[in-house]
Amino acid sequence: MLKVAIVMGSESDMPVAEKAAETLKKFDVEYAVRIISAHRMPNKLRTFALTVSDEGFGVIIAIAGLAAHLPGVIAGMTLLPVIGVPAATGPLSGRDALLSIVQMPPGIPVACVGIGNAGNAALLAVQMLSLAEPALVEKMRAYRLKFGDDAA
Amino acid sequence: MLKVAIVMGSESDMPVAEKAAETLKKFDVEYAVRIISAHRMPNKLRTFALTVSDEGFGVIIAIAGLAAHLPGVIAGMTLLPVIGVPAATGPLSGRDALLSIVQMPPGIPVACVGIGNAGNAALLAVQMLSLAEPALVEKMRAYRLKFGDDAA
Amino acid sequence: MLKVAIVMGSESDMPVAEKAAETLKKFDVEYAVRIISAHRMPNKLRTFALTVSDEGFGVIIAIAGLAAHLPGVIAGMTLLPVIGVPAATGPLSGRDALLSIVQMPPGIPVACVGIGNAGNAALLAVQMLSLAEPALVEKMRAYRLKFGDDAA
Amino acid sequence: MLKVAIVMGSESDMPVAEKAAETLKKFDVEYAVRIISAHRMPNKLRTFALTVSDEGFGVIIAIAGLAAHLPGVIAGMTLLPVIGVPAATGPLSGRDALLSIVQMPPGIPVACVGIGNAGNAALLAVQMLSLAEPALVEKMRAYRLKFGDDAA
Amino acid sequence: MLKVAIVMGSESDMPVAEKAAETLKKFDVEYAVRIISAHRMPNKLRTFALTVSDEGFGVIIAIAGLAAHLPGVIAGMTLLPVIGVPAATGPLSGRDALLSIVQMPPGIPVACVGIGNAGNAALLAVQMLSLAEPALVEKMRAYRLKFGDDAA
Amino acid sequence: MLKVAIVMGSESDMPVAEKAAETLKKFDVEYAVRIISAHRMPNKLRTFALTVSDEGFGVIIAIAGLAAHLPGVIAGMTLLPVIGVPAATGPLSGRDALLSIVQMPPGIPVACVGIGNAGNAALLAVQMLSLAEPALVEKMRAYRLKFGDDAA
Amino acid sequence: MLKVAIVMGSESDMPVAEKAAETLKKFDVEYAVRIISAHRMPNKLRTFALTVSDEGFGVIIAIAGLAAHLPGVIAGMTLLPVIGVPAATGPLSGRDALLSIVQMPPGIPVACVGIGNAGNAALLAVQMLSLAEPALVEKMRAYRLKFGDDAA
Amino acid sequence: MLKVAIVMGSESDMPVAEKAAETLKKFDVEYAVRIISAHRMPNKLRTFALTVSDEGFGVIIAIAGLAAHLPGVIAGMTLLPVIGVPAATGPLSGRDALLSIVQMPPGIPVACVGIGNAGNAALLAVQMLSLAEPALVEKMRAYRLKFGDDAA
Repeated sequence: MLKVAIVMGSESDMPVAEKAAETLKKFDVEYAVRIISAHRMPNKLRTFALTVSDEGFGVIIAIAGLAAHLPGVIAGMTLLPVIGVPAATGPLSGRDALLSIVQMPPGIPVACVGIGNAGNAALLAVQMLSLAEPALVEKMRAYRLKFGDDAA
Repeated sequence: MLKVAIVMGSESDMPVAEKAAETLKKFDVEYAVRIISAHRMPNKLRTFALTVSDEGFGVIIAIAGLAAHLPGVIAGMTLLPVIGVPAATGPLSGRDALLSIVQMPPGIPVACVGIGNAGNAALLAVQMLSLAEPALVEKMRAYRLKFGDDAA
Repeated sequence: MLKVAIVMGSESDMPVAEKAAETLKKFDVEYAVRIISAHRMPNKLRTFALTVSDEGFGVIIAIAGLAAHLPGVIAGMTLLPVIGVPAATGPLSGRDALLSIVQMPPGIPVACVGIGNAGNAALLAVQMLSLAEPALVEKMRAYRLKFGDDAA
Repeated sequence: MLKVAIVMGSESDMPVAEKAAETLKKFDVEYAVRIISAHRMPNKLRTFALTVSDEGFGVIIAIAGLAAHLPGVIAGMTLLPVIGVPAATGPLSGRDALLSIVQMPPGIPVACVGIGNAGNAALLAVQMLSLAEPALVEKMRAYRLKFGDDAA
Repeated sequence: MLKVAIVMGSESDMPVAEKAAETLKKFDVEYAVRIISAHRMPNKLRTFALTVSDEGFGVIIAIAGLAAHLPGVIAGMTLLPVIGVPAATGPLSGRDALLSIVQMPPGIPVACVGIGNAGNAALLAVQMLSLAEPALVEKMRAYRLKFGDDAA
Repeated sequence: MLKVAIVMGSESDMPVAEKAAETLKKFDVEYAVRIISAHRMPNKLRTFALTVSDEGFGVIIAIAGLAAHLPGVIAGMTLLPVIGVPAATGPLSGRDALLSIVQMPPGIPVACVGIGNAGNAALLAVQMLSLAEPALVEKMRAYRLKFGDDAA
Repeated sequence: MLKVAIVMGSESDMPVAEKAAETLKKFDVEYAVRIISAHRMPNKLRTFALTVSDEGFGVIIAIAGLAAHLPGVIAGMTLLPVIGVPAATGPLSGRDALLSIVQMPPGIPVACVGIGNAGNAALLAVQMLSLAEPALVEKMRAYRLKFGDDAA
Repeated sequence: MLKVAIVMGSESDMPVAEKAAETLKKFDVEYAVRIISAHRMPNKLRTFALTVSDEGFGVIIAIAGLAAHLPGVIAGMTLLPVIGVPAATGPLSGRDALLSIVQMPPGIPVACVGIGNAGNAALLAVQMLSLAEPALVEKMRAYRLKFGDDAA
């Protein structure tokens, strides 16, 4: 099964990344965690983005705050779907990161989730992987059953 | 191959929906277009959301303006990934729709793209479907080659 | 006399809900408190919304944060008036919830009050019920007299 | 049956007010339209607010733009429920009016609807009046049936 | 010499009001402090506004948070200049109060100062009174000399 | 009687300035109009600010858009009260000018009015001058009578 | 003398770029204009950024709208100073581009100017180049003299 | 080598200024720190701005919060490049300062960096000085190598 890459721009985003990791574990989806700054490590990021598909990853979760370029820059260098998580860093509490991630120009999409909501990013990654892995659909169904809803 | 469902809350969102449709055509991805208001047609929407997976759809693109509940409401009733497109409707030019779509609570993700950017929603849908359809990866590679970039 | 239903999207909204409850008690208006997530419990919410009128409720107060769909989704499935209370949850302090609640599309209204202001939601519910219960008008008059204003 | 008062702060708000009026007509709810500026006509507004209940009105719809004080000022001088409609007037497109209307202090509620959405204000008024007029419930049910939804 | 009236909408605004009072003391300008809610005490406020000029006051400083109607409502009922101070109350940190105070409609001005900046409101009041009291001009000159600037 | 100086940062602000001028004419208050950019003409502005009081002016109305420094810079170089009018120039429609004018630091106040609302700036100037000119109070009373309010 | 590179993310930014070019011409500063999308042409952009210094350029002006990553991405791959110009593209009128450009993380600065203000970007570039070219200081002095200010 | 002047509007901005100072030390760039309020010390500021170039400074870093006029006012009185740092002071967390600094009018640029990001202001100053000091280019290269990126 394809793996999920969790990338963050700064070590301070680790608590956000862990929410994604914990959620992926519940679905037995393999993942790797990387800290790569879009601006301070452009070569490392490029190598990562150009090779991530060949290394067995199917979806990328990119977490970044402030002028959050990380998800968009990765998205421009890979064909894999990229999920962006705006981090609530700094005086604007993630408004800047939200706009920097979601307002991508035509041609290169990023799938943006809520500010700091890396758990949802992981669930979205599982839904994407489910398209090729029917077993994940059943796991997601079981996951949702625990929400305590009535039968449809 | 799985199809893409394009749903919009109001007929006035049709020009946005057409951008998604035109992009999907370039990838020979089948799609269907539906107009279902989350608030004025809750039963129709429920039927849609509960059956869309069984009808051969793999990804849903939901377009809505103002208090844009459509993507989130669908996401709560299907296991398929839902892509939300905020429409630039009304006096706030889509800021309201952006926040209504992207700030989903824990447990039910929506993949939000830029305001009015239904073309990117379609590209994201293709990337998701690509996880199960290697042929789409090649089509996406070809699509990007037309951007005129240098070789890596 | 008709009762007031207080619904919230998450247990973390309980302190807000209690402000509504305490205010309703001052007017001897009966109420019930329910926790139903619009996204994680769509069936439970649907059952609630479709039956709430028959169970003797006359007004619904719905409290939600982030992409606060709860009030609007209920409003689409009942003919009762729905009062929405944006909760100041998350990094945007309720701005997202405010817009998600107040910017409803044509056809299905929600009566929005201030961020976190569930006490006012309860007062508004009492005013609505007063239209059918003249005794409540007198109670509201007495309530306001305690504000210490001069005679008109 | 109780009537609905539609008040606006300036003659320029008349097109918004007409949306409320047209909607009320569909429900055969009587209404009166008044132009009273909260700031330029404080005495007229006071007389209006202090007598509106005795003149057979049950709900007030107040439309205002900019620093939209009209709904809140009326609400402080009557026990009737007041619905506020922010007008999209001026360079801020109604954001100022929205906050001036919705963020009322504890004790005096205003029921705010979306920017410019006077049609929804009228529907909300009908819902309020329905609590004392069962015939209006049936009219609202019929109104909604025209939305073309499936049966529940 | 004319006095300055400091009015606030809620006792919780007292720390802000004290900054105005302390500044006025430095200029030996007499002042009175009043707590009158625009919404909960409309009659008291009306009496205040209609009589304040006759009681020897020349300028009014009105402090309010949230949907801060206090300065504007007073301004509509007196010919004296009214200075509005937005209080940083509630989840929006005074943005709502700022817009509710500054965006007054044509015909009735309010002089708005910065959020929470009641000290500047007092200085502005002194400048206004200076137009009739040359002695205050000299006191203001002396006050500014303490800022430690170079000679012009 | 003291005169009013109307200063603007750019010739494009002239239509806004004219609204102030027209209003002042109604009160027979003398005024002068000047175009002085705070940034492009710092010496001219300094000379203006240091001499304006000696030339018989009592109040300054300063109009500026974008990073609207004009009112604040003048306020730091004169003891006269300065009224700032944010111009709705540029892509932010005056939000930038509003904050640049109203959020002055402690010690140097500016009296801010609504975006583009130079008419209110003129009325505020008249109110200020009224403190030393009782005849202006009567003119303001007459001006307001034309609003068509009832007697108090 | 070092040249200035003007880069934009999309051909639609050309009118903005021309304002920079026209201003540079007034100072006889050589420049080159390039259209390179940060996301659609990452390799072209990389080649550009890695070689621009060696090709005789001293300052880079990068213009971009929406999630405006162009200036920041270039800044991470060159040691030259990068000036970012947010373009007023799309429904948010450049607010998104402003935050995406100005809120750069620690370590990699971008010099941001006002939305759409490419003329100022050019002037800033000239000021930077002036540090090594005293002749440009004199040209800037002459340029400013034309503003019509008084002598200091 | 030219020095860098670090100016702040208030002593409370000192912690921000120190981040700039510490960064400049790493590059052995000389600097001086000054506290001069744009509004409370206009003469001191004028003297500073008119002489700073002659005293061997090549770049100015100006830090200010609220209606942050300091960078723009200096920029109008010197030909040196001015870098503005919005301080996250007050209830708006620096949004006001950001707009007051970045939205300068045509003719007088300010190079704005992120809110509170004085470290980046210092790096930008070093990049500017590098245009005349090749040794600084090498120091910047070494500084960036410590970010731990791969070779290009």
